[in-house]
Order: sequence, then C-alpha cells, then structure tokens
Amino acid sequence: MARRFDGDRLVIASHNPGKVREIGDLLAPFRVAVVSAAELGLAEADETGDTFLANAEIKARAAAAEAGLPALADDSGLAVAALGGQPGIRSARWGGPEKDFDAAMGRVEEALTGIRGRRAHFACALALCWPDGHCETVEGVVHGHLIWPPRGTLGFGYDPMFVADGHDITFGETAPEAKHLISHRADAFRKLVAACFAA
Amino acid sequence: MARRFDGDRLVIASHNPGKVREIGDLLAPFRVAVVSAAELGLAEADETGDTFLANAEIKARAAAAEAGLPALADDSGLAVAALGGQPGIRSARWGGPEKDFDAAMGRVEEALTGIRGRRAHFACALALCWPDGHCETVEGVVHGHLIWPPRGTLGFGYDPMFVADGHDITFGETAPEAKHLISHRADAFRKLVAACFAA
Repeated sequence: MARRFDGDRLVIASHNPGKVREIGDLLAPFRVAVVSAAELGLAEADETGDTFLANAEIKARAAAAEAGLPALADDSGLAVAALGGQPGIRSARWGGPEKDFDAAMGRVEEALTGIRGRRAHFACALALCWPDGHCETVEGVVHGHLIWPPRGTLGFGYDPMFVADGHDITFGETAPEAKHLISHRADAFRKLVAACFAA
Repeated sequence: MARRFDGDRLVIASHNPGKVREIGDLLAPFRVAVVSAAELGLAEADETGDTFLANAEIKARAAAAEAGLPALADDSGLAVAALGGQPGIRSARWGGPEKDFDAAMGRVEEALTGIRGRRAHFACALALCWPDGHCETVEGVVHGHLIWPPRGTLGFGYDPMFVADGHDITFGETAPEAKHLISHRADAFRKLVAACFAA
C-alpha cells in the first residue's frame, strides 16, 4: 500500500511557475495547497540520476528535506528505442541553453540517420517524498513512433515529431483535449492520485 | 472484437455545435472528419430509450441510416442511487424548457428530502452505429455523492452539487484539467477510442 498524502500543503519541486500552477490545479480536488520551491527559496537539486524516476525522486527528496514538508517532483522526456533510450533524461538539454526544440528534433533525426527503427515513447515520472525520506513514485507512458519532418504547432518539446500508437497525426497537431486523454502526463497523474490522494 | 471505424467521415448525431466541435477534436488524431447532423439536415431522433446507452444508440442508429454514413451519438446525465437512478435520462429535462440547472439541482435536493443516501454517479454513453445497423457502445462513469448547497461556477449541469469519490470539492469547483482526468466523458472516450479507433 502506498503511503497516503494527508497534509494540506505540498511543495512542488520546480521553479517553473506554469508547471506549479498546472499541478496545483490537478491536486486542488484533494484540498491540497501547493507552494513552489521558488517561493520557499529552495535550491534546485542536481539531476544526477540515470532515469526519469531517479531524477524525480532526487528533486522531491531534496525539496522535502529542505522544506520539512512533503514535496512532489516530475521528470519527463522522450526515449527513442533505436537510440538506447536517448535523449531520455537529457531531452531538454538536447535543445541547448536556449531550449530550442527545433534544434533538438533535428539532433534526434540526425542520430537516426541510417537506422530503420523509429519506435519511441514519452515518459513522465512523478515522485512524492516526505521529510522522513519515504517516497512514492509512479510513471506514465505513451508509446508511438517518430516522423520527419515535424508537423504541427501545438504542444511543446518533441511533440511535432511524435505520433502516438493508433494516431495518424503528431502530438503537435493534436488538440489538448485529445492529447490529455492518452498522454504520459495524464497517465502518471491518474496513477499518483489513485495511489496517494483519492480517498 | 469491436468493429473498427475505417472510414474518414463520421456523422455526429447532435445539433449542438459545441459538442460536435469537441468530439471532432477528440477524434482528429485518427484522421476522422466529423460532420454534424445539423449540417446534413438530419432530423433529431426521439429519445425514447430507458437508459443512456439506449438513447445514444437510438440517435446514432437513426443518423447512420439517414445519412448512409457511420454516426456517433452520446447521452449522459446524473443518476442518484436513492432516487432509483433519477434524474438519469431526464437530467436535462429536469431543468425545464430553459435548461435551468439551478432549478434542476433544487428539484434533486427536494426529491432527497428526508432520504439519507446521497450516492450518485455521472454516466456518459457513446454509440457508434453503421448504416447496416451494427452498433458499438461504451459507457463511462464517475462515482461520488451530492452536497447541498451547490458550490462553484465551473463545469455545467449538476456539477456544483457533485463531489467525486476521493475529492473534497465539487465538479463546479474543479479545474477542467483535473476533471478531465477522471470524468465520465473522458472515461467513455478512452474506451471508444481503444475499441474502435486506435490501430
């Protein structure tokens, strides 16, 4: 049995205000008030893990210990099978300091030159950690394949080159409502809520 | 095995432009172009069924036969256990000709006077029918209980008096992103897509 969240304040271990607000909306039904790591003046933990789950846990564990409150962190990205899971935990870094995902997609395509397999998945890891060091983790995934050239202006990151299994268009061409039905992020949050928040 | 949709045009058996657009967005990833019953000049079928599923099927079957194309219809509403499932298929009609859901919620509360049980669920039935009369149907549900007085201005219909299991706030107080994670409508569409649209 997962440990249940029974407090009323939760630190979101992120310095991205948009992400903090979005997670706050998702957890509002459980009367959880979220506070961001930035508001608390917490340091950003180094993401030294080898997996999405490890990095989410590192961030949540550090924030919980420093704040003395439960903390939630996420880590997500694109894993390409034929590239051994790359860009994976370096998904954002492949965009360089300017987070240029057009460039990042170009790098993925270049790495795939001469390789036939184009299977890929998006993953979203969530870690909920308490100040005593206990953590609950979940991971959501959506499987698909990559196309080239990228198509669509919706979504973000690698969305314009990713076609989910069963879909005919890229995530960059998919309305948010349709993407949210099957996305790695929605999958992860449904699992976390079922394990730790729902009564 | 469910019959799969393999056309490129689908009639949405609804005269509500907002609903047609929303369903079009949800099915766009499968390269399905939707056309509304209103655009085709189809008659609105009488909802003479006893259940959400029966009414969805009546509407989809009539539209498919008249248009000579596959057709999708939905029927949804609130079912209160202690009222034998009412308002159920009459959920909209309890709002009267003006579809006044404040009045409809008042009628539900009045019907519950002196009754202890406040369990309820929202259901969304979807029927996909072909011109040859074959239909595939699915139903999504979200369980919860009713509170009084209603709270919140988000959502629509009976949302302000419905608290989903595990939640502490009403659907009327819940951000759309959080509601869509667990709603009866999202549940139904995930099932339909898995059965009839995804490859």
